[in-house]
Amino acid sequence: MADFFADNADLQWTFEHGIDWKTLYEEVSLLDAADDDLATWEDARDFWKEILGLIGQFAGNEIAPYAAEIDTKEPELVDGDVVFPKRTQQIFEQLGQMGLHGMCLPKQLGGMNCPLVLYMISAELMARADVSIMTHHSFHGGIAMALMTYSLLEGTTEFDMEKKVLISTRFGEQIEQIATGQAWGCMDITEPDAGSDMGALRTRGEQDADGNWTVTGQKIFITSGHGRYHIVIARTEEASADAMGLDGLSLFLVEAYSEEGGTKTWHSTVERLEEKLGHHASPTVTISFDNSPAELIGKPGEGFKYMLLLMNNARIAVGFEAIGLSECALRMAKEYAAQRPSMGKTIDKHEIIADYIDEAETDIAGLRALAVRAAFNEEVAHRKRLRRDYMTTEGSTEWTDLDREFKKRTWRSRLTTPLIKFLAAEKAVEISRRALQIHGGCGYTREYGAEKLLRDALVLPIYEGTTQIQALMATKDALIFITKNPQAFFKSWADERRKAIAGGPLERRVAKLRTNAQAAQLHLMQRILKGKLKGRSLSAWKAALAQWDTRTDFAPALLHAERLTQMLADAAIADALLAQTNKDPVRGTILAKHLERAEPRSRYMLDIIKTTGDRLLAELADDDLVADADAA
Amino acid sequence: MADFFADNADLQWTFEHGIDWKTLYEEVSLLDAADDDLATWEDARDFWKEILGLIGQFAGNEIAPYAAEIDTKEPELVDGDVVFPKRTQQIFEQLGQMGLHGMCLPKQLGGMNCPLVLYMISAELMARADVSIMTHHSFHGGIAMALMTYSLLEGTTEFDMEKKVLISTRFGEQIEQIATGQAWGCMDITEPDAGSDMGALRTRGEQDADGNWTVTGQKIFITSGHGRYHIVIARTEEASADAMGLDGLSLFLVEAYSEEGGTKTWHSTVERLEEKLGHHASPTVTISFDNSPAELIGKPGEGFKYMLLLMNNARIAVGFEAIGLSECALRMAKEYAAQRPSMGKTIDKHEIIADYIDEAETDIAGLRALAVRAAFNEEVAHRKRLRRDYMTTEGSTEWTDLDREFKKRTWRSRLTTPLIKFLAAEKAVEISRRALQIHGGCGYTREYGAEKLLRDALVLPIYEGTTQIQALMATKDALIFITKNPQAFFKSWADERRKAIAGGPLERRVAKLRTNAQAAQLHLMQRILKGKLKGRSLSAWKAALAQWDTRTDFAPALLHAERLTQMLADAAIADALLAQTNKDPVRGTILAKHLERAEPRSRYMLDIIKTTGDRLLAELADDDLVADADAA
Repeated sequence: MADFFADNADLQWTFEHGIDWKTLYEEVSLLDAADDDLATWEDARDFWKEILGLIGQFAGNEIAPYAAEIDTKEPELVDGDVVFPKRTQQIFEQLGQMGLHGMCLPKQLGGMNCPLVLYMISAELMARADVSIMTHHSFHGGIAMALMTYSLLEGTTEFDMEKKVLISTRFGEQIEQIATGQAWGCMDITEPDAGSDMGALRTRGEQDADGNWTVTGQKIFITSGHGRYHIVIARTEEASADAMGLDGLSLFLVEAYSEEGGTKTWHSTVERLEEKLGHHASPTVTISFDNSPAELIGKPGEGFKYMLLLMNNARIAVGFEAIGLSECALRMAKEYAAQRPSMGKTIDKHEIIADYIDEAETDIAGLRALAVRAAFNEEVAHRKRLRRDYMTTEGSTEWTDLDREFKKRTWRSRLTTPLIKFLAAEKAVEISRRALQIHGGCGYTREYGAEKLLRDALVLPIYEGTTQIQALMATKDALIFITKNPQAFFKSWADERRKAIAGGPLERRVAKLRTNAQAAQLHLMQRILKGKLKGRSLSAWKAALAQWDTRTDFAPALLHAERLTQMLADAAIADALLAQTNKDPVRGTILAKHLERAEPRSRYMLDIIKTTGDRLLAELADDDLVADADAA
Repeated sequence: MADFFADNADLQWTFEHGIDWKTLYEEVSLLDAADDDLATWEDARDFWKEILGLIGQFAGNEIAPYAAEIDTKEPELVDGDVVFPKRTQQIFEQLGQMGLHGMCLPKQLGGMNCPLVLYMISAELMARADVSIMTHHSFHGGIAMALMTYSLLEGTTEFDMEKKVLISTRFGEQIEQIATGQAWGCMDITEPDAGSDMGALRTRGEQDADGNWTVTGQKIFITSGHGRYHIVIARTEEASADAMGLDGLSLFLVEAYSEEGGTKTWHSTVERLEEKLGHHASPTVTISFDNSPAELIGKPGEGFKYMLLLMNNARIAVGFEAIGLSECALRMAKEYAAQRPSMGKTIDKHEIIADYIDEAETDIAGLRALAVRAAFNEEVAHRKRLRRDYMTTEGSTEWTDLDREFKKRTWRSRLTTPLIKFLAAEKAVEISRRALQIHGGCGYTREYGAEKLLRDALVLPIYEGTTQIQALMATKDALIFITKNPQAFFKSWADERRKAIAGGPLERRVAKLRTNAQAAQLHLMQRILKGKLKGRSLSAWKAALAQWDTRTDFAPALLHAERLTQMLADAAIADALLAQTNKDPVRGTILAKHLERAEPRSRYMLDIIKTTGDRLLAELADDDLVADADAA
């Protein structure tokens, strides 16, 4: 009996010591009455551990053995609907029967009221078996939680705070259908001319005289897009240049089809099923809406804000998926290398291969430490906000405390999320490619499964915001922070420099990674300022410094965005591992291994940032001048 | 009309100024009478340029448009033979009709007597259209040239040196069949338990009482292995531990089937056709021989030596294939990025994407400069050896001059070959993966062709010696050179240090890359010596230093082999680009771009080599101790 949870020592440590279950228990209990048998946080933790055990076994025994079949037999577009092959269909039915679609939903809606962090770990376990199964699965619970959250935000959910029970919620019916496995949903963002650039979205939401909304437009690359409940972002007002077109967008719930007695009536058209490189249990479709009835979520114009609110969550989840896939690739590579002889020993004893394996083990442990931290902050932020809004009166001490905590956790999550999405997705590609390479000729054939992992991994740096978008976000946030809070930045800089000199041996090394990242930020800021103030009179400096256009002013930083993000991620991982080491010295080994690789890398990134880039930036600026001249 | 030669400015420069065609003309004319219309080297160069133009057009118009079809419709194993799909079959027939299988063969055997360097460039052109078409194509001319070379080496070829014509050659019949497209051959090395480790080969060659040889055994991953003429390496004597089992190997020509009147009679069995990730016009098979009649090539026991002789060639050819594929990926990415708008401009103007494209352009130009240098040295070495053996008397001044030139060129080729195979193959993966990523969601679908390039690229770091094997070879050669010629090493070190201080601005920077690589070698040598001499008395040092086991003594260097090889490759590329710049200052731009990226990378590699590795090496040594204890 395979058990993907029990067989994973690093994950076991993480579950036992790396997550503050007590806080999560307190939070989840506040909005949903605890069962009698989960009277204490320890009870709850034991119960949650059992759930992960069941999922680990399901992943190991009911999904992983069929990974090749899942890959080979793809869903098909038949008469305007997507049909899963039998095996894939069975797996999703079993997941539904286990009640996993409602893992984090309130009990009153058929859920289990588990912390989101638990769901994230389950994502790792399932992705280790087959990442595309996890992806489609996530469009059940994930969309149900999104609907729940949106209703909470717009104030259409009612709680009995005394009894700690949900009385009603706007999308209760849809959520219950999803929780019980009768339906699932999806997020419809991308359009043919609008990928990362949401300001270019053209799908329209229109309201008739009776106040009813409809949505018209085409959405592409929609994951699990043959689902019933579509959260669609659409334009309800003309794009404004100021906000890069992001202000006229609204969010809608569109029922792609209604169902009665097993018969579907479509209110939209699934036009196309993508043939993809991998990720075959997760259909990706083009869907079009033509005056499809829609329900407005929140207020008109709040679409982008609402969308962003759930993006962190989805991106952290991709981080866990990437870790699961990497874990699978690493184990496959280790197993093969341990039995493949060459030159008188098995190849896992050859230095280069041993180095690959050592690096992958270190990276996965570090990413996992960072991922649970990101998930924890994201979850706590979310729950503090709900408590602030539902359990306290604005202006009260409690409200103020919760608000502060909400903002602190939100900021931490915001800083960490692009790092985990960026690095975990890239590492999944690196680790699965090395697994293929370790298999040599066998790795290039379809039968060993190594190439399947790489094919599956290659979507991770693309969906839910590309690697490049994550790097740009992390970089802009880091630099905007300096422009807005120079004092806070310099205080943190001084703190880290002090630690880099005066801290304990590991603390010093961790702080040094941070000060290198700060040095990179300062260097980039200097170059940005030089460009921004060049040719302006001293008297115009103040006005120039009050106004920032991150697209043009930040060019020197954007060029190096991936490098700075790598530095920030390495430092954040070191920080997370240091916290673990302070709790349990045994984790010092992993931290030391991480530092060993991160230190020269950090020096390298800083070196590139400091010594290169001007030439290419000048070339790009010349191109702009030529384009302007052409346009004039 | 697409023309993959004319549309490539860097390749045009390379052809016009980057290759010493005069020397090559003189060499090829010596063994094959020049046509009247190729009376001068300029005439020949113009003719060769026309050939490349034809190939460039054929690649652009007759192969590239069908790349997706070639990928989708794979060859099939039908009744024990591999059948190409119609399109692929047609392309190979056209290549045969154009006479390209005999591009470098003597005219008397139906060839065109072109330099090998020309063939290498043609490999780039065709690989840009579809790398697997190039691979199968190469098993025509490549094998014919191998047979020719083996016959020359064993002395079974006769020339009329006066008339500069071939009189006879042992494998003339087979070569003519191949040159005219009636057959092709393959190289049968890999076995289930012997990949990189040729000492573990088990296929046997046996001789009966009448002196007739047969071969028995199974060979796997044989590219184009359904061909008629198999060059098979097989064991004819028991493996000896001293030579790692490489001394009992012999080379055979086995006719897998004979053909009369279009009917094939098989003397071997094609057991299996691999289903591969990509590279679909190039079938990879498992073939077994059961007392199959065989002709011994050379003498018994010379198999490994003969095999090695042609490996350089094949590895350089993979370098050119990789460059062609990279060129295709770069152009695809540029074209997409130039028309894809995002955030108010096309994405090629976004800094990160512009950086990817700039790096790929620089890398491809640098690799091309190194590749033509490697090919030139390899070809000249080969031709000097033939002249030495066929046109001079051992001991004469001429013989001595040719021998010296042969050795010099061979050494240069040996040093460069693993660098080009290593880096070009890895870059093909990197550049095609970035092309996929630049395409975003479109890149992950099958219709845009980006993912096909990555799938095709992934075999390049595996076949003809993996990336890791190339790194080990380059590293061992670099260090063995120090152990054998410490004076020569230190002289070169002093020379480069002088240049790094006193040379021209670009020369200084190139020399600095070299001195960094030398510093890395010296550091590794120190660690190796420390390990080797540890615990030995001073009196035992001399004996220890006289005996080297590169597998055990060199462990600290093997761990860092890829890093050192990266440094050596960066320095070699800089050197090749400097030579070009000295010829034509316009090339200084590419050299400067290369240096901009290579310099911080060189510092990084040196940093890692100097500061890390001890921990992992100690762990591996501990494992060895445990294994020894278990075995005892």
